[in-house]
Amino acid sequence: MRFAAFFLDGAARAYRHRPTFSKLVLVFAASGGGLVAYADARAEVAAESPGVAPKKKVVVLGTGWAGTTFVKNIDSSSYDVQVISPRNYFAFTPLLPSVTCGTVEPRSIVEPIRKIITKKGGEIKFWEAECFKIDPENKKVYCRSDIGTNLEGNGEFLVDYDYLVIAVGARANTFNTPGVVEHCHFLKEVEDAQKIRRSVMDCFERATLPDLDEEERKRTLHFVVVGGGPTGVEFAAELHDFVSEDLAKLYPTIQDLVKITVIEHGEHILTMFDKRISKFAEEKFQRDGIELKTGFKVVKVSDKTITMENALHGESSVPYGMAVWSTGIGTRPVILDFMKQIGQGNRRALATDEWLRVRECENVCAIGDCATMSQRKVMEDIMEIFRFADKDNSGTLTVKEIQDVLEDICIRYPQVELYLKNKQMSDIVDLIKASKGDVKKEALELNIEEFKNALANVDSLVKNLPATAQVAAQQGNYLARCFNRMKDSEEKPEGPQRITKMGRHRFLPFSYKHFGQFAPLGGEQTAAQLPGDWISIGHSTQWLWYSIYASKQVSWRTRALVISDWTRRFIFGRDSSRI
Amino acid sequence: MRFAAFFLDGAARAYRHRPTFSKLVLVFAASGGGLVAYADARAEVAAESPGVAPKKKVVVLGTGWAGTTFVKNIDSSSYDVQVISPRNYFAFTPLLPSVTCGTVEPRSIVEPIRKIITKKGGEIKFWEAECFKIDPENKKVYCRSDIGTNLEGNGEFLVDYDYLVIAVGARANTFNTPGVVEHCHFLKEVEDAQKIRRSVMDCFERATLPDLDEEERKRTLHFVVVGGGPTGVEFAAELHDFVSEDLAKLYPTIQDLVKITVIEHGEHILTMFDKRISKFAEEKFQRDGIELKTGFKVVKVSDKTITMENALHGESSVPYGMAVWSTGIGTRPVILDFMKQIGQGNRRALATDEWLRVRECENVCAIGDCATMSQRKVMEDIMEIFRFADKDNSGTLTVKEIQDVLEDICIRYPQVELYLKNKQMSDIVDLIKASKGDVKKEALELNIEEFKNALANVDSLVKNLPATAQVAAQQGNYLARCFNRMKDSEEKPEGPQRITKMGRHRFLPFSYKHFGQFAPLGGEQTAAQLPGDWISIGHSTQWLWYSIYASKQVSWRTRALVISDWTRRFIFGRDSSRI
Repeated sequence: MRFAAFFLDGAARAYRHRPTFSKLVLVFAASGGGLVAYADARAEVAAESPGVAPKKKVVVLGTGWAGTTFVKNIDSSSYDVQVISPRNYFAFTPLLPSVTCGTVEPRSIVEPIRKIITKKGGEIKFWEAECFKIDPENKKVYCRSDIGTNLEGNGEFLVDYDYLVIAVGARANTFNTPGVVEHCHFLKEVEDAQKIRRSVMDCFERATLPDLDEEERKRTLHFVVVGGGPTGVEFAAELHDFVSEDLAKLYPTIQDLVKITVIEHGEHILTMFDKRISKFAEEKFQRDGIELKTGFKVVKVSDKTITMENALHGESSVPYGMAVWSTGIGTRPVILDFMKQIGQGNRRALATDEWLRVRECENVCAIGDCATMSQRKVMEDIMEIFRFADKDNSGTLTVKEIQDVLEDICIRYPQVELYLKNKQMSDIVDLIKASKGDVKKEALELNIEEFKNALANVDSLVKNLPATAQVAAQQGNYLARCFNRMKDSEEKPEGPQRITKMGRHRFLPFSYKHFGQFAPLGGEQTAAQLPGDWISIGHSTQWLWYSIYASKQVSWRTRALVISDWTRRFIFGRDSSRI
Repeated sequence: MRFAAFFLDGAARAYRHRPTFSKLVLVFAASGGGLVAYADARAEVAAESPGVAPKKKVVVLGTGWAGTTFVKNIDSSSYDVQVISPRNYFAFTPLLPSVTCGTVEPRSIVEPIRKIITKKGGEIKFWEAECFKIDPENKKVYCRSDIGTNLEGNGEFLVDYDYLVIAVGARANTFNTPGVVEHCHFLKEVEDAQKIRRSVMDCFERATLPDLDEEERKRTLHFVVVGGGPTGVEFAAELHDFVSEDLAKLYPTIQDLVKITVIEHGEHILTMFDKRISKFAEEKFQRDGIELKTGFKVVKVSDKTITMENALHGESSVPYGMAVWSTGIGTRPVILDFMKQIGQGNRRALATDEWLRVRECENVCAIGDCATMSQRKVMEDIMEIFRFADKDNSGTLTVKEIQDVLEDICIRYPQVELYLKNKQMSDIVDLIKASKGDVKKEALELNIEEFKNALANVDSLVKNLPATAQVAAQQGNYLARCFNRMKDSEEKPEGPQRITKMGRHRFLPFSYKHFGQFAPLGGEQTAAQLPGDWISIGHSTQWLWYSIYASKQVSWRTRALVISDWTRRFIFGRDSSRI
């Protein structure tokens, strides 16, 4: 589940503006026109003056954070951009938990993708369809429209691409736990949030029906959240507020029977946050009467009970009325199939290099939750790095030689810089000294083994980027910029020196800038972990949350709507109608 | 479809305050306590001090205009009121056509019934369930909750009543036309409006898909409205505005292919309005490019074509993308079954008398679209009326004798007053003169035959009330008032003198006051037919519409939301996201 996607635009703009993209560009230049498979495009090609090469076709799959940010930023006068997604809108997913209880209305967090396209001049095409197969060999994607029932044929069509940008996101991960798909709600799409809202109301209406016994009423009003991550925790908090602030008044006879339980496999909730936030959240939930079952793993879900396992206590079952499953993300079938085709069959997500290009596959980039960028390890390239730095081919490196190439190395392998920062070393010399003992800087000279030793631990800092809106949006923005500067970068490459070949990389590799993360905990209290490990908890943070989430809305319309929803909630409360 | 339900509260309050309700009250007094069938009520009965009779149970079926107005106005301290409805909210249905295109959001026109109950002190019980059988013999209703799937048993339960108020409304009437249920949208519920909105967006998204030919695109963008009544016309107008104001910009390549057709069986649309309004609407639709197929009857609907019949041209078929069926109202199955039980099997709606009591059935009242109030005819009672007026038993009536009872007769048979007004007669004497020739007032004396002749035509003015929100709300309000004054009216009956028996009727019969009706025609133009046959058409009427609809909202919350929706539409347009 993507979460806390603030500072997005700002983040994206704040980048260093010299990414590398050379390999991709070489391939781009070689790639041909491709068969134009449909009426619209055919007309366009015919209209082009003869002799002028048609624009390259960029096909974007998905309109989530990654896809939409890419579309917003791509220069549509240089490319023939085609967007394909089963949803004709972009959704501000960090507010999804608020939608589940009616704090914010679903329409307030969505923006039609065509509106975004129209604002850019309207040259981009959009098709509401789902890509169900990618054919990288023939540069085609197979799409299916699932609209209505009376479409001619089966609603399938083919689209050619020159470059493909995969941004289809992820699906909920059930870890193949039996019964989850059948009985649990997920919280990834706007429709999920709407369903949860209806389901919560159903439980309350059901629990008031005349001929139920107390046990059955209690079961019906037991809301279980599986997964103590930010989404699950925020939903539990929202639900608690909804019950205590709104529903208690409307269902006075059953308000005392309501119970909310959060089941988490790990020892604590919100483990991706600082321990102080985890602790605060756990204490607040305890005060609120939200039960925390940490250290429990759900092993089975039936229509009325959830069975879980604990190392100490073994298996136990609890009856429940409604369950929300929010334990992380899994891979979509179309991506699984694509990964098999390109030899990534045993991975959990599509692997890309630091320029967000899919490994083993020409002209295909992948951004957002469907991909993981695998950072090149220093130890894999250690010989090349040594040779690259050893300008005089002496077989040893002087401090000066290292310092000459250090910037390029730090850009290509950001873990090096991170390692120095983490160890509070001001300089590579400190690193060398740490491995070699205290020697004089001028006399310092390293052979390959000593160089290896000095850098032995830096790769431990290579980490996968989190599956958040922040990362996806920054990737979309980065990739669009690379496409836009393709020509310029040919003459003026922006990237670091190549280690193995001559010349520079065309673009700087993608580098993620973390702007912090919020964890709303209900009762107008929010915790935030800001850059530099600043922790902020309480009412004032809730107001920071309000202002940042309002400012980060994708359009003035959604901004106005979200703010008016919050105001409406303050004045009138949340609506409990079952629609 | 209920429509144009303005002036509701005002209307209800403006009533003459002396309705008759005597028969019902007699029965009420005799009726016993009934078996208490469920936990809640059992507890309550136990808590009552011994010797004090428990409150009479009033069960209300439905939370539409009639049911909700009744619940809002009933004195819940005197009755044990239980409300049963499959919808836990009240919907302001006159704004449903606005919801179909996103001018107004669905949540802005609904108010949870529990909120209305809570405002009254919370003594009323509500159950979200559907009544599927009424057993008038045992004074029970059979209900079924359709919430979720994992309720114990089949979700059925029994509720006893002392008095039953049926206000379940009507369903769409397909006239058994084949294919309608399968392929057409209706527009009676909030869910219908939401589905139509999604379906409109589907048609636009489908029509832009790459490999369709022009024919298929045109078919997909052909929107058909069956029924030229207020609802159908308003929907067609809303859709036209949505397309021209919002969608044309977002779907520039297909905007010229859109076509809207209204099919109406009669010779004109909006026939319930003044001819000037009909004409204005037809001309405006022509200017807007909305095709009117008047004089056509739809005989079959398939997934892609609508077949219609015309006296002159015979049968013809048109391809279509989406169709909305809005041709009037039909009877719900539960009412059909109930009517069979009480010997009304061959009627189209539940017949009630002028006090809204179901004929042939004790303690059961019916209000709103599920019922028709059948006005007693003068000619049926002419002998009794004659005898009632002939105080001196002379076998003839003098003018004075007639004038002495005229008020009571006009209240009991409102058609008499209406007839005099229509013929511009100031007095009953004019009526007698008209039938008997010009004689002197003092010398005038009538035997039974002459009396019959004089009143021969008055019954032609007996008309069924329209199935509108206005009527339903006035009935709900009237009935609640009768219940509230039950005791008082025993001592001080409010109604007219009884014709056949001694004494007065307890309450005045229900009398509908028409406050006018609006027909929004799109493009910020509305037509209105106000009382006294005032006609108002144009932009100013649209603003009258805005202000009256805003003022008539059921709560401050919905009022604020509806106004903010209108404002949002003016500033940002309507949202085209498919959620």
